[in-house]
Amino acid sequence: MTNTAQAPTAVTRTRVELGDHSYDVLISSGNLDRIGSALKEVWSGERLFVVTNEKVGQLYADTVLSSAQSAGFDASLIEIPDGEAFKNLDTVNLIYTELLNARADRNSGLAALGGGVTGDIGGFAAATFMRGIPFFQIPTTLLAQVDSSVGGKTGVNHELGKNLIGAFCQPRMVCIDVRTLETISGKQFETGLYEVIKYGLIRDEIFFDYLVANMDRIKSLDDRMLQDTVRRCCEIKAEVVAADEREADLRRILNVGHTFGHALEAATAYKELPHGQAVGYGMIAAAYLSRFIGLIDETTLYRVVSGVLSIGKLPPVNHIPAEKVIEACGLDKKRQGKKVVFVLIDRIGNTVIRPLDKDDELLRKAWKATLQAVEACPGD
Amino acid sequence: MTNTAQAPTAVTRTRVELGDHSYDVLISSGNLDRIGSALKEVWSGERLFVVTNEKVGQLYADTVLSSAQSAGFDASLIEIPDGEAFKNLDTVNLIYTELLNARADRNSGLAALGGGVTGDIGGFAAATFMRGIPFFQIPTTLLAQVDSSVGGKTGVNHELGKNLIGAFCQPRMVCIDVRTLETISGKQFETGLYEVIKYGLIRDEIFFDYLVANMDRIKSLDDRMLQDTVRRCCEIKAEVVAADEREADLRRILNVGHTFGHALEAATAYKELPHGQAVGYGMIAAAYLSRFIGLIDETTLYRVVSGVLSIGKLPPVNHIPAEKVIEACGLDKKRQGKKVVFVLIDRIGNTVIRPLDKDDELLRKAWKATLQAVEACPGD
Repeated sequence: MTNTAQAPTAVTRTRVELGDHSYDVLISSGNLDRIGSALKEVWSGERLFVVTNEKVGQLYADTVLSSAQSAGFDASLIEIPDGEAFKNLDTVNLIYTELLNARADRNSGLAALGGGVTGDIGGFAAATFMRGIPFFQIPTTLLAQVDSSVGGKTGVNHELGKNLIGAFCQPRMVCIDVRTLETISGKQFETGLYEVIKYGLIRDEIFFDYLVANMDRIKSLDDRMLQDTVRRCCEIKAEVVAADEREADLRRILNVGHTFGHALEAATAYKELPHGQAVGYGMIAAAYLSRFIGLIDETTLYRVVSGVLSIGKLPPVNHIPAEKVIEACGLDKKRQGKKVVFVLIDRIGNTVIRPLDKDDELLRKAWKATLQAVEACPGD
Repeated sequence: MTNTAQAPTAVTRTRVELGDHSYDVLISSGNLDRIGSALKEVWSGERLFVVTNEKVGQLYADTVLSSAQSAGFDASLIEIPDGEAFKNLDTVNLIYTELLNARADRNSGLAALGGGVTGDIGGFAAATFMRGIPFFQIPTTLLAQVDSSVGGKTGVNHELGKNLIGAFCQPRMVCIDVRTLETISGKQFETGLYEVIKYGLIRDEIFFDYLVANMDRIKSLDDRMLQDTVRRCCEIKAEVVAADEREADLRRILNVGHTFGHALEAATAYKELPHGQAVGYGMIAAAYLSRFIGLIDETTLYRVVSGVLSIGKLPPVNHIPAEKVIEACGLDKKRQGKKVVFVLIDRIGNTVIRPLDKDDELLRKAWKATLQAVEACPGD
């Protein structure tokens, strides 16, 4: 429970339809202290282990644990170190050890309380502890709420690359309290907004325009707008995931902006800019590429670029050699033979998959145009 | 291809029906050199990584690799250290690293060539590399052929216990060449026979009697009998697994003899006797327990005990305190609250699940009777 005085609002539910693995995403404002009874709806287990890091734990662990205990669960905490640097097998092993020391068994459940890193690590641990135990997501950052907590992708990094080790692990429930967003930094919030606008770009023009028109109110954490925004993102993600659980094809559309985005992250050794901002660059580059291939007109290009930039000024990346970024596009997981698979658009709200040669001159042109557009953007 | 001069025999196929994850178990004698075309039937990928250890690799890697290459695959070897001691996350990580260094991607496939340990480790690596890549089993020991290669259980040990980390990973195909059994030791072969007789015990009285009547010929590796035996085991396992992929209930029957068996292994720190022999003890103990509870008559008890002992003399375990074994029964993964779940029989070919208190006096009595029966058994 955050320390605001606002009364909790109604809980909305978005169903992720995945046959036997279907689950609800519960979205509320101020309902974190009722999480225990929510879990009780879908799970009859006894012992719940809440994985979190120190920072998030200090803010919300007591609320979550006492709510779970009130609902009759034997709930306890497993603390993991904070940060992407610890998203590896060692941290997963630390969770196994804590579970085993506490005599957890295959009827125990695991909840991840925190951002995307915690969800990814916790989900992978849940997927692989005794071949899988019930898993629950309690995402507390915007990025985790709209992206990583829904869809079942979990995993950790390998020293040779990010997210290379993992498993699909659908949670039994995702519980989102948008008031937790009051305790993340403005920069962390912006990171999530790039993924938010992505949903409009790939699937919903009305939502895209709504976001651009209301960006300031959303950034000021307007309660109602936050709930609506998070809900719409989860709906779109749920639709896409339900249609294509295993990312064979449709799910790829979620990767708009990610080929350039991942390349930019790789070219900066994941140190200079957060994932969302990299995807921000990637979406602009994808828009230019769509324009140069002739998929969209100049007006649409302008709307996408200014829409993405409405979130805020992107950190400059001019000092990174363009060649390095282009080269890193060729390393993307989403390869198709020797081609790099780009998710482009033919209008706002609809995507087109285009495998391109990484030596294609249009890639360089699109990247150059992206850098110019970002540079020309006025500051916050 | 082994160095026998016998012509290869016809391949039999047993289907494991698991919806989208269904697959065939191919059983042959002398068909290892045609494995490439078999894989080609079910998989259109390009790059195949064959995980094996040095010992098995020396015997069969060339045959498997050249067969795969002839079928058009780009096949290469990943060698892992041999033995249960290396069945851990470090070895899995070694496989990830080799895959990444070789630029494997999510379209690459992984085949485990070897015994149960190799299959368990390889399967877990395949299940978790880039959230899962195609997996194939080429089991070369009897235990792996009749048990671990079918059913999708994969995983590794944690320093606090065996098989505690894992994932379900159904292979795309299981390719069994019974001639590989010519290169395992008599002791390794016997280990597998305990799991073989288990299938008769839980599901097929005729098969049970067939095994006991023909034990000598099977042990002399009669080609036709080996194929029939392995096929019948795979059929039963496939039936059970298909009916209950995730071990909620029915799959438990496969664990007859495993509660005492695992307890005995734990009480000896997994050092004194192989898994199969421990299960041999466990089946005898389960038979006595069934008798003492009144589920079976004296004749049935005698048939089970002498049937299990027909495989060979079990190594003595009299020096292990009975209390330690009984205590370890309480640590079994298959707990139900405070009760220990035993898989018993009410006749040969049919099981009964019975949760019992570990302090139940009948457990001690059954264990004592088991030790006496084994001791009274004449040597080989």
